[in-house]
Formats: sequence, structure tokens, C-alpha cells
Amino acid sequence: MDRELHLKLTVRLYADDDTRCFGPGIATLLHRVEEHRSLRAAAASMGMAYSKAWRIIRTAEAVFDRKLLDSTIGGRHGGGAVLTEDAQRLLAAYDRYRADLEAYAQSRFRDAFGDFGAVSPEQSTGRGGSTPSRG
Amino acid sequence: MDRELHLKLTVRLYADDDTRCFGPGIATLLHRVEEHRSLRAAAASMGMAYSKAWRIIRTAEAVFDRKLLDSTIGGRHGGGAVLTEDAQRLLAAYDRYRADLEAYAQSRFRDAFGDFGAVSPEQSTGRGGSTPSRG
Repeated sequence: MDRELHLKLTVRLYADDDTRCFGPGIATLLHRVEEHRSLRAAAASMGMAYSKAWRIIRTAEAVFDRKLLDSTIGGRHGGGAVLTEDAQRLLAAYDRYRADLEAYAQSRFRDAFGDFGAVSPEQSTGRGGSTPSRG
Repeated sequence: MDRELHLKLTVRLYADDDTRCFGPGIATLLHRVEEHRSLRAAAASMGMAYSKAWRIIRTAEAVFDRKLLDSTIGGRHGGGAVLTEDAQRLLAAYDRYRADLEAYAQSRFRDAFGDFGAVSPEQSTGRGGSTPSRG
């Protein structure tokens, strides 16, 4: 069977009142802030409107009741933003959790969907027809 | 801490060429077909255009190379649709897989996000302040 199925998992966090407060979008945004040290540049690098980036950060800050960005004032480029320690911990927690679920999901994927074309990661990499495995 | 975080997991299946072929939308649609014995009625019950429902089914049928719906001809309402055996198995596999991931994810949720307001399912149900547990 040549067909291969692939899995995409999305992990989102919501507050009591169903406000979406964390997910792949803000995770990427925070990583880009780390990289660019500016919310405006981070948003631009994702093709996201600055106003939207701002709203996403504000919403999460309200739900978690913590500051996520620290403004940096002055400097060559006239000020930017860096992640607070809370934001770094939250982002790391999300990334770890996501990777944990992903690993679990992948480990069960072939059992669940093997009949429908899912292959295990081992089969998926280095498939070589009748070529014997190395060693 | 009164704030509670909730998790929403989305599980989607893609084909080699990145065609989305299975996820929450088609799963609900197939369940509704089981219920209404008609694709048109199933789509309507979800506020989904019939043309979209049809396209979703066709796309999945092409990826899995199996028929998912059997037309029923005649009868009081002039024909409808039922799930093929393959569709029933695929839907059951997806539902089981999703429930398995959800259970795993919930079991790790508090460890991952307890510092940020996540409570375990046990804490979440029947929280009664200082009320002692029954028994």
C-alpha cells in the first residue's frame, strides 16, 4: 500500500469562560518574539497583523493573570519586547506537553489506522521495498 | 486559584500530499448520517452546505480508496444514505483513537500546567471548598 496517513494534533488551552488563551498561534508568536526581540517584528514574520498579535498576548495575559512580555526601552532599534520568565515557563510547558502528546499519539497511530493506510514512523522512514535492513 | 484551564485536542488525518482526509468535521458528519440516514439531512443538521458535505466525503473516499456511503433507494423519503462497513470501522477507529489521546492528555494536564491554573479532572468535579468528601 503506497498511501500513507499522517497525523496532525492541535493542542489548545481555554479558560473557564471558553476564551481561547493558548495554542499553536501564540506559541509561534512567542518563539518569534524570542528571536526578533520585538512583537511587531514577530507578528510581521508570521504575516500576522500587529493588532492581532497584541490582542492574542493581552488575552493570554488576562487569563493567566501574568505579564508575558517585557518592553525593552531604547537601544539601537528604539525599544522592543522580550519574554518574561512566566512566558518562558509557559511556552516551555506547552512545547513539552505538545511533544509528549505527539509522541504518544504517534506510538498508537499504526495500531489505530494501520488498516486504513497508516504506517508507523519506522516504516515511513527508509522504506526500501525488499532491501534488507542494514547491519 | 479560581481560574481553570481546559484542554481541547484536535486530531486530523492527512494524506501523503497533505490532503486533509479525516477529522472532527467528517466524524460528526458520519455520525449524523447514521442518525438521519441521509447525507443531505446530516449536513443540514450541522448547518453545513450539502455540496461541502459531498466534497468532504468524496475526498476521504479518494484518499482511503473505499466507499464510505451506500445509497439507499426508494422508501418513504425517496432514498438516502447509510455508512458502509468500511466507514463504520474508520469512524470507530477515529473515535477510539481520539478518546485514547484525550485520556492520556488529561492524565498529564495538571502536571504540565498546574502552575498556570490547570486543575486535574478530580479537582474539577465536585469541588466543594472545605466540604469533606463523602463516605
